[in-house]
Amino acid sequence: MAEDNLVHSHDANHPANLICELCKLFYSNGWVTGTGGGISVKDGDLIYLAPSGVQKERMVPDNMFVMDSKTKEYIRRPQIYKPSACTPLFMAAYDIRGAGACIHTHSQNAVMVSLLYEKEFKIANIEQIKALPRVTSQGYLGFYDTLTIPIIENTAHEEDLKDTLERAILDYPEATAVLVRRHGIYVWGESVWKAKVYNEAIDYLLELAIKMRQCGIAPDGAIGSEKGALRVE
Amino acid sequence: MAEDNLVHSHDANHPANLICELCKLFYSNGWVTGTGGGISVKDGDLIYLAPSGVQKERMVPDNMFVMDSKTKEYIRRPQIYKPSACTPLFMAAYDIRGAGACIHTHSQNAVMVSLLYEKEFKIANIEQIKALPRVTSQGYLGFYDTLTIPIIENTAHEEDLKDTLERAILDYPEATAVLVRRHGIYVWGESVWKAKVYNEAIDYLLELAIKMRQCGIAPDGAIGSEKGALRVE
Amino acid sequence: MAEDNLVHSHDANHPANLICELCKLFYSNGWVTGTGGGISVKDGDLIYLAPSGVQKERMVPDNMFVMDSKTKEYIRRPQIYKPSACTPLFMAAYDIRGAGACIHTHSQNAVMVSLLYEKEFKIANIEQIKALPRVTSQGYLGFYDTLTIPIIENTAHEEDLKDTLERAILDYPEATAVLVRRHGIYVWGESVWKAKVYNEAIDYLLELAIKMRQCGIAPDGAIGSEKGALRVE
Amino acid sequence: MAEDNLVHSHDANHPANLICELCKLFYSNGWVTGTGGGISVKDGDLIYLAPSGVQKERMVPDNMFVMDSKTKEYIRRPQIYKPSACTPLFMAAYDIRGAGACIHTHSQNAVMVSLLYEKEFKIANIEQIKALPRVTSQGYLGFYDTLTIPIIENTAHEEDLKDTLERAILDYPEATAVLVRRHGIYVWGESVWKAKVYNEAIDYLLELAIKMRQCGIAPDGAIGSEKGALRVE
Repeated sequence: MAEDNLVHSHDANHPANLICELCKLFYSNGWVTGTGGGISVKDGDLIYLAPSGVQKERMVPDNMFVMDSKTKEYIRRPQIYKPSACTPLFMAAYDIRGAGACIHTHSQNAVMVSLLYEKEFKIANIEQIKALPRVTSQGYLGFYDTLTIPIIENTAHEEDLKDTLERAILDYPEATAVLVRRHGIYVWGESVWKAKVYNEAIDYLLELAIKMRQCGIAPDGAIGSEKGALRVE
Repeated sequence: MAEDNLVHSHDANHPANLICELCKLFYSNGWVTGTGGGISVKDGDLIYLAPSGVQKERMVPDNMFVMDSKTKEYIRRPQIYKPSACTPLFMAAYDIRGAGACIHTHSQNAVMVSLLYEKEFKIANIEQIKALPRVTSQGYLGFYDTLTIPIIENTAHEEDLKDTLERAILDYPEATAVLVRRHGIYVWGESVWKAKVYNEAIDYLLELAIKMRQCGIAPDGAIGSEKGALRVE
Repeated sequence: MAEDNLVHSHDANHPANLICELCKLFYSNGWVTGTGGGISVKDGDLIYLAPSGVQKERMVPDNMFVMDSKTKEYIRRPQIYKPSACTPLFMAAYDIRGAGACIHTHSQNAVMVSLLYEKEFKIANIEQIKALPRVTSQGYLGFYDTLTIPIIENTAHEEDLKDTLERAILDYPEATAVLVRRHGIYVWGESVWKAKVYNEAIDYLLELAIKMRQCGIAPDGAIGSEKGALRVE
Repeated sequence: MAEDNLVHSHDANHPANLICELCKLFYSNGWVTGTGGGISVKDGDLIYLAPSGVQKERMVPDNMFVMDSKTKEYIRRPQIYKPSACTPLFMAAYDIRGAGACIHTHSQNAVMVSLLYEKEFKIANIEQIKALPRVTSQGYLGFYDTLTIPIIENTAHEEDLKDTLERAILDYPEATAVLVRRHGIYVWGESVWKAKVYNEAIDYLLELAIKMRQCGIAPDGAIGSEKGALRVE
C-alpha cells in the first residue's frame, strides 16, 4: 500500500526496524514469549505500534501500525492484524508524560513482584537505581534514593486498564513505570533507547528484590539492615 | 530418493524447514537436550515427523519422516533412522482433535510440576493464560479463567502412553496439552505456530507456578489470596 | 609445522573442528568458563586434545594436541601451550572403556550434587534417564532404572585423580561418567556425539535432582514418594 | 578527528575492538545491562576507556576514550560522551598493581554476595579457584587455598570509591578483585584476557557460594563440613 514507505527503511534506527530488533531481544529475555507484551515508538507526529497477538520475535516492519499522534487515527493499518490492546495504555504515557516510547512485557520478575508487594514496589540503596530518571526534575536517582513503582490491579480486558493506569501515572509523577498485578509491567521513556534502558534497569532491580526477599533482606531496608539475614561472619 | 522433494524446499515455512528451525529454538530453551522431545507438523494430507533419538538441534530436512495422514503409512522413511516413539501420541492429537502440529518436550518445568501436582495442573488469574485457546468454543481463555492441564502417569515405553493420553484428551476436551509425570509435556495446536505459541505460554505458566508455590502462593488461588505469603507491607 | 595437516580440515566433523564447536556450546552452558574443563576425541589411532588453561570458547584447530593412541606420544604439540592435566584421566576412559571421546566440565550442577551426595549420585524414574547407556550390555537404561554415578574426592593436582578415577571406572562398570567432589564431572562415550549427548542428559538430571531435593523429593525415590512434598491437592 | 586512528583497526585484538566484543559478552551475561558497568584496557602507554552511561552492548570503537598513561590526559575524547566515573578506580589498579585491564560489572551474584557477607568474601576447596592468580607470587591458587575478596562500602558518587578501593588493594595484596556493597565488582588482570578469565572464574565462585549458602553449606568450610546439610545418604 501507499503507506508502506512509512515502515520501509534501510536505516537500522528507523522506528519500524528498531521495534523488530528490540522485540527479538525482549523475546530472548523471556519477556514477550507466547505473543505477550507490546511496544510503541513515537517519531515526530507518528506513533509506531506493534500489532496484537503476534509472535514478537518474528515481526517484520510490514506488520507495523502507524498512527497520527494528533488525530489519533491510523494512517497505516495492516488488514490482517488487529491493533494492540495496549494502544490506549501507550497513549496515556504519550499524552500525560510526553513519552517517546513505551514497552510492555510479561516479565516473570514483574509478575512475581506484583504478588509479593501490595500497592507499591520499593527498592533503595542499590547502584543500579542510578540508571532511572528523577522524572519531575533533571537527572537520575541517586544511590541512596528509593525507587517506587506503583502496582495496579489487572482487568479482564487490557484496554480497561486505561483509567487506573492514568491515575497511577498522575499519582506517581516520579515513576517511569507501572506494574500490573498478575500481568506484567509498562515502562516508558523520553526515547526508545531511554525506555529500553529503564526497562532493563527496572527488571534487574525486580529480579534482585525477589532474591533479597528470599534471603530475608528487605529491598528497601537501610544499609546495614541486611545483617541478621544469611550473613554468617 | 524420489521422496526427497517432500522435504527439500527453499521456503523457510516449509514443514521440514520449520521443524528444524523450531527444534534449534527448543534446544536453546533446554526442552529437548540429550535427544529428548519430538515434533510433528501436518501439511494437508502429509504428516512430517522428526526421527527418534537424534540431536534435535542438529536435524536437517533430510532426516524427516513423512506419513500419509489417511493411510498412516510412511511415504518417506530415512533408512538410518527409526520413527519417533511419539508417533502414536501425535496421531492421537491429529485424529481426536484435528491438530495441525504437535510438540513434545522434556521441559524441567513440566517435570517439576508433574511432581508437585497430583492429577491436574491448575493456574488462574494470570494474564499469560489469555494466550491459550478455549478449544471447545471460539476464542481464548480470559484472565479470570482457570487453565487446567491433565497429568498422566508415565510408562516404560513411550508408545504405551497412547491409551491414557487419548483418555486424557477425551476427558479434558478444553485442554490443548497433557503433562506426563516424570517425563514432560505434549502440546498441540491448529497449526505449527499455534502449537509453538501454546507451548511457550504453557511453559511460562508452569515456571511461574513453581515460583509461586515456592513463595507459598497457590497458583490457582483467588486474587488477594497471595496476601500472607512473602508480602511484608 | 608438518603436523598441521592433522588439524586443518574443511570438514565440520573433523575432530579438531568439532572440539572447537563443542567447546563454544559448553561455554554458553557455563560449563567451561574461566578456562575450566577439557575435551578429547579419538579418531582411529589419533587422540585429539584441547590444551591446558586456554579459553575454551576461543580455541581454534591450531591449538590442538594430537597423540598416537598406541605409543601415547604426542605427534603434534603446539609449543606455546601445555598439554591438558586431564590427559591421564581421558586415557583411563580410552584404555579401560574403549571410549571414543571424553568431556570434562566444571558444571555447577555437578559441583552442587557432589556437595549434596556422599559416595554416589542416584536418580530413578525420570524419562531423561533413557538417554543413558547400559554400558555392560546393549541398549539404554529404562524409565524404571536407577542411574548411578560414582563421586570421587578431588586432589590438589588434576593428574593425581587418575588412580581413583580408574578405580571408580572399574568399580562402576555400568557408569559412563564420574563426578569429582567440589570440582566437576568426567563423561565419556563411544563417539564424540554420544559423549556430548550423555553429558547433556546427565547435566539435565543433575539439575533436576537439585530442584527435587530443594522441594523435599528424593531423586531416587519410588514413584508416588513425591506425595507429601509440596503437593497440595 | 585525527585521533580516530587510535581506535580504528581491522585487528579483532585491537583494544577498541576487544572492548566492544567483550561488552557484548558481558551484556549477554546480565553483568552490564541498563548501561551499568565499565571496562578499560591498557596498551603500552595508551589506556582505552569505554564512555559513561552508554548501552554497553551497542558500543562501537568510535565511542572510546584514550588516555596517555603517563600524563593521565585524554588524547582522544569523543565530545558527545562523558568519561566513565570508573576512571579513577581503573587507575588505582593500573598504578598500584600494574594491571593491563580492568572490568567493572553490576553482576547480581556480586551484589548478593555483598549482602550476605560482612567485610570479606571467602571460598575454599573448589577446583575453579585454581583459575585465580596468587598475585604476590608466581602461579595460581591451589585447590586447598582460600580465595579472599574484600568488600568495601558504596558511595553516592562512583569516583568517591577511589580512596577505599585503593586502601582495599593495599590491604589485600593477594586480591585481583574488590566487591562493592550493593553495587558490583571490580576485577583486574595482567592483560585483557587475564582480567576477563579472572572475572569469569570469580563470578562462577560467587554464584556457587550463594547456592552453597542456600543449602546450608559454608563456602569456606573444610572438605567434609558439607555433611549434615541437605545430604541424605
